[in-house]
Amino acid sequence: MHPLLKEIRHNPLLWLLVFVPALFAAHKLKPEAHTLHFVLSVLAIVPLAALLSHATESVAAKTGDTVGGVLNATLGNLTELVIALTALRAGEYTLVKASLAGAIVTNTLFMLGASFLLGGLKYHVQEYNKGNARLQASLLFLATIAILIPSAVSHADSAAGSVFTEKLSVGLSVLLIGAYALSLLFSLKTHREFFGSADHAEAGEAPWPLGLALATLAGVTVLVALVSEVFVESVQHAAVTFGMTPAFVGFIVVALVGGAAEMASAFSGARKNRLDLSVSIALGSAAQIALFVAPVLVLLSYVMGPTPMNLQFWPGAVVMMLIATMTATLVTNSGRSSWFVGVLVLMVYLIFAMTLYLLPPRI
Amino acid sequence: MHPLLKEIRHNPLLWLLVFVPALFAAHKLKPEAHTLHFVLSVLAIVPLAALLSHATESVAAKTGDTVGGVLNATLGNLTELVIALTALRAGEYTLVKASLAGAIVTNTLFMLGASFLLGGLKYHVQEYNKGNARLQASLLFLATIAILIPSAVSHADSAAGSVFTEKLSVGLSVLLIGAYALSLLFSLKTHREFFGSADHAEAGEAPWPLGLALATLAGVTVLVALVSEVFVESVQHAAVTFGMTPAFVGFIVVALVGGAAEMASAFSGARKNRLDLSVSIALGSAAQIALFVAPVLVLLSYVMGPTPMNLQFWPGAVVMMLIATMTATLVTNSGRSSWFVGVLVLMVYLIFAMTLYLLPPRI
Amino acid sequence: MHPLLKEIRHNPLLWLLVFVPALFAAHKLKPEAHTLHFVLSVLAIVPLAALLSHATESVAAKTGDTVGGVLNATLGNLTELVIALTALRAGEYTLVKASLAGAIVTNTLFMLGASFLLGGLKYHVQEYNKGNARLQASLLFLATIAILIPSAVSHADSAAGSVFTEKLSVGLSVLLIGAYALSLLFSLKTHREFFGSADHAEAGEAPWPLGLALATLAGVTVLVALVSEVFVESVQHAAVTFGMTPAFVGFIVVALVGGAAEMASAFSGARKNRLDLSVSIALGSAAQIALFVAPVLVLLSYVMGPTPMNLQFWPGAVVMMLIATMTATLVTNSGRSSWFVGVLVLMVYLIFAMTLYLLPPRI
Repeated sequence: MHPLLKEIRHNPLLWLLVFVPALFAAHKLKPEAHTLHFVLSVLAIVPLAALLSHATESVAAKTGDTVGGVLNATLGNLTELVIALTALRAGEYTLVKASLAGAIVTNTLFMLGASFLLGGLKYHVQEYNKGNARLQASLLFLATIAILIPSAVSHADSAAGSVFTEKLSVGLSVLLIGAYALSLLFSLKTHREFFGSADHAEAGEAPWPLGLALATLAGVTVLVALVSEVFVESVQHAAVTFGMTPAFVGFIVVALVGGAAEMASAFSGARKNRLDLSVSIALGSAAQIALFVAPVLVLLSYVMGPTPMNLQFWPGAVVMMLIATMTATLVTNSGRSSWFVGVLVLMVYLIFAMTLYLLPPRI
Repeated sequence: MHPLLKEIRHNPLLWLLVFVPALFAAHKLKPEAHTLHFVLSVLAIVPLAALLSHATESVAAKTGDTVGGVLNATLGNLTELVIALTALRAGEYTLVKASLAGAIVTNTLFMLGASFLLGGLKYHVQEYNKGNARLQASLLFLATIAILIPSAVSHADSAAGSVFTEKLSVGLSVLLIGAYALSLLFSLKTHREFFGSADHAEAGEAPWPLGLALATLAGVTVLVALVSEVFVESVQHAAVTFGMTPAFVGFIVVALVGGAAEMASAFSGARKNRLDLSVSIALGSAAQIALFVAPVLVLLSYVMGPTPMNLQFWPGAVVMMLIATMTATLVTNSGRSSWFVGVLVLMVYLIFAMTLYLLPPRI
Repeated sequence: MHPLLKEIRHNPLLWLLVFVPALFAAHKLKPEAHTLHFVLSVLAIVPLAALLSHATESVAAKTGDTVGGVLNATLGNLTELVIALTALRAGEYTLVKASLAGAIVTNTLFMLGASFLLGGLKYHVQEYNKGNARLQASLLFLATIAILIPSAVSHADSAAGSVFTEKLSVGLSVLLIGAYALSLLFSLKTHREFFGSADHAEAGEAPWPLGLALATLAGVTVLVALVSEVFVESVQHAAVTFGMTPAFVGFIVVALVGGAAEMASAFSGARKNRLDLSVSIALGSAAQIALFVAPVLVLLSYVMGPTPMNLQFWPGAVVMMLIATMTATLVTNSGRSSWFVGVLVLMVYLIFAMTLYLLPPRI
């Protein structure tokens, strides 16, 4: 277990692991302290997500480029997937959808914008490989269309309309997963020369041995699942306590918590003038949630959820995803960035966050 | 008649001509066999469209570059125009509009996407002239705005609203035809050097003599008109028989049937690494329907239709046209293509087709 | 006062100054002649706007590049600001919003399109600096999102909805002004080398002495305020007389009147093959209204208006602003222009103008 302890000593984020047992203790001893549970579970998820992310990368590094790329591409958002699965099993479909849409928007706007800003404050102009940004932005565009079409076409809440939305959602989910699989074939196999080094692992960070990595992957996934259960339970109560709308919590808070580990890597890449890395993490992660995590959840809802979940999102969330995709397409078009590009992207995110924060409940 | 026979022997598509007399016989002998009529008329339209297309190109080739360009640009979608006119005279405005929107979307997404995919499976990366793609995409964008505005501005179904929509549709139609005429002046006359060889005729395909071409043009147009009449009559019955929604038939089936001949040319161009040709056929044809065929039908409805037809489309169709235009703009932005670009564009088309297929009738 | 008189003799536009006293006389002598007031106030505003614009530039030229840039960026649309303030004090919020949206759309489409067309009729192809166009288009995009979000998210006209819209509008206004200030820091200070000479003053036009410029600025602002009062009073009556809808008057007529002086500069730049100047005036002015004038008016409505004004626009106006922004982004993407690009952009404007002209009142 030496490398794991070394990692914990090196990475200050991992000191937060102490909140994992603290959460379980608090849940046992004070079962009604929902706000405390919420705060502790947020603090506990962050280091677990960082461990999951490192373990996935270590497995990926050991299994060769292509298999590793596929692993990274499917397990890279394992935290988001586990949180969403927990909410799915509890039948909290509004929270599932808000956290999915929020993760897409937060990765596309906040992670990308803050990377541009942090990089731009240090370097006058930064350049990055447009190829990858364009592929991920196109995939996001495709997913947004798939999510937009059911709402655009059917306004009816009739019985016929709901059967239609359900069937369509399954069909769209299969299409999206297919498109995602083909995009991996494209970027990892047939046209890999267009996609620069997208290795997430930092230089100097040695990958763990395979056994340790696999054990961590399994063990931490279980921990994330347990923590998520408390998190999903407490999140609505906490929202009331903090005076936040449920939309804001699902969209902004959950997304920031679930993506904390990736953000740390993206921002550190930007400060080291490796903007390729930052863009690839931010847009790649958003595309993965839109084309892999979301449709997988729709399909799993038939097995694990109380009722089937569809792909029809709240119209405001659809508009936000559409705008986020357009913003990413526009700003990554030139392959260059400076601080003001970051400001622009962050402003769009701020507009969304402010709107959701002020939104009266039940509208 | 020698070149015509030679053409028929060479081009396997033209063997389908045997279905033209078969259709007329079936219509006479079994007037109630609507599904049979539908199948036969689909099979009969495909070779007639191919003949019309070849005849138009032959006339164009004989009349010099500019006149020929104008001819190609106005008669290139004669099949779609005749089918739509038949439906117009029958007062089937929903079918007219669905087939127009469907032809725009099918040409922009299916024809373009399949060309990219077919070309990309043979060549690693293909390049093409961006100038033409950009012009056609801009024209499509303009037409989409013209079609979007009446719906965006007026939600009222009041009497005042309907007079407004009618007047506005005539005005917009005149504007669109004007813009189309100016685009021809631009691409054929003042700035022709930016638009590479957009000759549709395949190398090795000798144009017919002018007399034969003109006779074919006239004769086949009459045949298409007669076949269309049976087609329009039978299409609703057939939809019920095959379990397809009317929206799916108008949008997808009619569009694929009407454009079969052009698709053959576009796909063959892509396989020969002449992607300029494919892009120009696909987007040029879509722009022509949006800026020429559709407004001409609106104006003709005052002469030939039972009541005036307006430019206000079903909101779902407007959204699909808008997304198709945006997709074309995004993917042709770089002037390069590989197989995955084709997959992406086809996926958008598949999303639309699946949605229309599942859509419950009367929503 | 010599340079002022010289300017008046040189610039035929300024002969219209004679309509300023004419208007005040007419208002005194014939207080009921609303149509006359309207016509005279339109004719009087045009030369006053030209004077204001020249005075601002003279002050800017004397105060050095950065201070001058900020001055130009804040006072460049002083005419629009004063007209809107007058309408604001009168509580005519529909007119205020229509004139703001109209000024954004008119500058983005009419001023830009006519510049491209006028330049393109003289020069085969014109090139310009993309950097500035991209910055202004991005700012416009941001402002359009800020204006779109309140409508997209809240459909309720409930009391909770209106409190939400009010709070959100104040927050968005502060964000927009902040983004605008940062864009000045970016373009005037940290990355000024990317933005070519954007000096509006024509070569050969000597700036006025500072004292004269400041006196003109103060005096003419008062005159514009007085004329605007008559204009706002008479505009609704005039609309009825001329058979124009209020939407058309606010959106098209007011915007063309308020922007006449800037249009003269933009068009003259295009004819001299200085398209950088034209693009920078057109898009810069639109961005300034969207990110500075509009939010300042929202904030000022708390001090000067009868009730607070929000940022929620009529959905048709939001769609038009969004389309205008997308059009500007698309056509300035390449940094090249020819006459047909101008035609395309003007066609979009014509579609809007025709729609507003035909729109039945009270829809």
